[in-house]
Amino acid sequence: MDRSDRYTTGRKMLDEIHRGPGKQIMERIAGICPDFERLITEFAYGDIYSRPGLDLRTRQLCTIAALTALGNGPRQLKAHINGALNLGISREEVVEVIVQMALYGGFQCAQNALLLAAELFEEREQ
Amino acid sequence: MDRSDRYTTGRKMLDEIHRGPGKQIMERIAGICPDFERLITEFAYGDIYSRPGLDLRTRQLCTIAALTALGNGPRQLKAHINGALNLGISREEVVEVIVQMALYGGFQCAQNALLLAAELFEEREQ
Amino acid sequence: MDRSDRYTTGRKMLDEIHRGPGKQIMERIAGICPDFERLITEFAYGDIYSRPGLDLRTRQLCTIAALTALGNGPRQLKAHINGALNLGISREEVVEVIVQMALYGGFQCAQNALLLAAELFEEREQ
Amino acid sequence: MDRSDRYTTGRKMLDEIHRGPGKQIMERIAGICPDFERLITEFAYGDIYSRPGLDLRTRQLCTIAALTALGNGPRQLKAHINGALNLGISREEVVEVIVQMALYGGFQCAQNALLLAAELFEEREQ
Amino acid sequence: MDRSDRYTTGRKMLDEIHRGPGKQIMERIAGICPDFERLITEFAYGDIYSRPGLDLRTRQLCTIAALTALGNGPRQLKAHINGALNLGISREEVVEVIVQMALYGGFQCAQNALLLAAELFEEREQ
Amino acid sequence: MDRSDRYTTGRKMLDEIHRGPGKQIMERIAGICPDFERLITEFAYGDIYSRPGLDLRTRQLCTIAALTALGNGPRQLKAHINGALNLGISREEVVEVIVQMALYGGFQCAQNALLLAAELFEEREQ
Repeated sequence: MDRSDRYTTGRKMLDEIHRGPGKQIMERIAGICPDFERLITEFAYGDIYSRPGLDLRTRQLCTIAALTALGNGPRQLKAHINGALNLGISREEVVEVIVQMALYGGFQCAQNALLLAAELFEEREQ
Repeated sequence: MDRSDRYTTGRKMLDEIHRGPGKQIMERIAGICPDFERLITEFAYGDIYSRPGLDLRTRQLCTIAALTALGNGPRQLKAHINGALNLGISREEVVEVIVQMALYGGFQCAQNALLLAAELFEEREQ
Repeated sequence: MDRSDRYTTGRKMLDEIHRGPGKQIMERIAGICPDFERLITEFAYGDIYSRPGLDLRTRQLCTIAALTALGNGPRQLKAHINGALNLGISREEVVEVIVQMALYGGFQCAQNALLLAAELFEEREQ
Repeated sequence: MDRSDRYTTGRKMLDEIHRGPGKQIMERIAGICPDFERLITEFAYGDIYSRPGLDLRTRQLCTIAALTALGNGPRQLKAHINGALNLGISREEVVEVIVQMALYGGFQCAQNALLLAAELFEEREQ
Repeated sequence: MDRSDRYTTGRKMLDEIHRGPGKQIMERIAGICPDFERLITEFAYGDIYSRPGLDLRTRQLCTIAALTALGNGPRQLKAHINGALNLGISREEVVEVIVQMALYGGFQCAQNALLLAAELFEEREQ
Repeated sequence: MDRSDRYTTGRKMLDEIHRGPGKQIMERIAGICPDFERLITEFAYGDIYSRPGLDLRTRQLCTIAALTALGNGPRQLKAHINGALNLGISREEVVEVIVQMALYGGFQCAQNALLLAAELFEEREQ
């Protein structure tokens, strides 16, 4: 794949997952440093998320697990929870992953992720 | 569930997932602080891993995602990769989760987890 | 102890420590995922904080130390500083623990914890 | 150097780097715990930043790198980006360091640092 | 206090806490970068640990809490557990702090700290 | 740039920086998951390190800063310190960056990085 193919593949993947907050982050990034928006789209979505060998739903839940346990990207966690729901993952599955992360990232990280998830669930209902 | 039920449920779950390194960690913990072995078994395996709402394979991959991205529990990561293979998760799926974590925990964490996974794959072949 | 005893013990401990922000977090968690509120109460307060072998004041200061150094739970840190004051720990002792954490979590974490503590001290005066 | 010399040296260094947000953090810290303001000025700026062997511009970019990758001090990161611009470091250099940190702290940390940098760039234009 | 007083105060404090592993780390640091050995002694032990307002035993347990939860300094954690025992803190108290940290740093961090503590307890018996 | 150009550019950059430990990590990664070796080379070295706007020496010191402060990639930190020396950065500059990181990642991270640096300096002398 050359660059434009990677961007196209990545963009398609990104659009499939992210409608809403995830897209807004990417648009803001593009406004500050267009190269970085391109690099994320090409690499994260064109190269990594598009790989065969693991279904997209599991990939998305693993990202939620990592961002919950790390606790250093609330904006991105919220966007990925939204992405999970866009992919048909249930709220219950998202909550289960978050609760499980209390074991690895500490209760504070699981609590904060749960509060973020609740915030997003409400926003989607409006 | 009372305490003995939680321990029994947890122990069954723990035994299903962990044969090998995971079991050795728990035995060493039991030798130092038996209460902590009991608390982990009851809470992590009896209360959390046993919850319905998410299948055990996804739970196991989410744990691998978190421990890869956090990078602070190599012993436990190796044990959980072993646990994943015990549950019938393929090596390829494990590798895919680890590679994806380069995006959230940094390349150093994904590289170190991959080296651990390779070490374990070799040990299981012997 | 069976489940209801652990919840009762945990709830008593939680009520002793947390009046104010800590209680509010738990109520919001209960609103999103009642199971998680129960699990935290049973495990964190019923199983861990209730253990003999270490006095509650030292436990509380150790939690403040960890949350300051980790820097990933400002909400919980504020709640636990409030809990410390509820237990009769002095402001000076809380500040000393936070300042000491500059050595292990970096100056940014100690600074941010100190700003949170000051915010809480003011709120308690009103 | 005795204490007052270290404070004077540190204060001079601090004033050279920080005008704006960095100074405000120090003033708030001084209002809560004057000893901690003094310790930071003496140690961080009087002892460390003043050391020969590395130019101040590189020191400042290394601090931005670390705070971006750690992701636990947004206030301090913003202050240090401001400090970098005060020292004549270009916006482009700051952005390059931040983008590079996607490799070590994860994309979420680089994204959040970039959003902070953009916020600061706008504030400086007003 | 001028520099030599801070070093003397710090050294006395360091010698009171650290006999064994803690001292060895400082000697190795002194062999690589004598300035850094001096800065740690002056700042960490001369400025911070020597402060009134919190007793040394609580300071030492708070350091163990933070290093357990952060999980990024096993060498230093072991040295500080040894320092705690040198100060007359009991093994049980150390174990209680470590177990409690499962709540904030994840079970992997508490497990690893417990294994380190057990290693040290054995070394001290020989 | 298409994929083969990115790999070639990345490989050239990687070869310029890494002779010794850095190369060995990449060879081991290539043995386990050749795709990941390719992705790292293309993205980290072909896309990021090759960007104009920041000189390679500063990039290398920023990477050392981040890996020191994060403390989760000792193997990679050692490789990047070696890379810094390969690029003509002095030992003193490397030590200064590491010492400075005590302020942001804690003293334990700076100490451990210094011990790693000393180990590497000795290996290079043999």
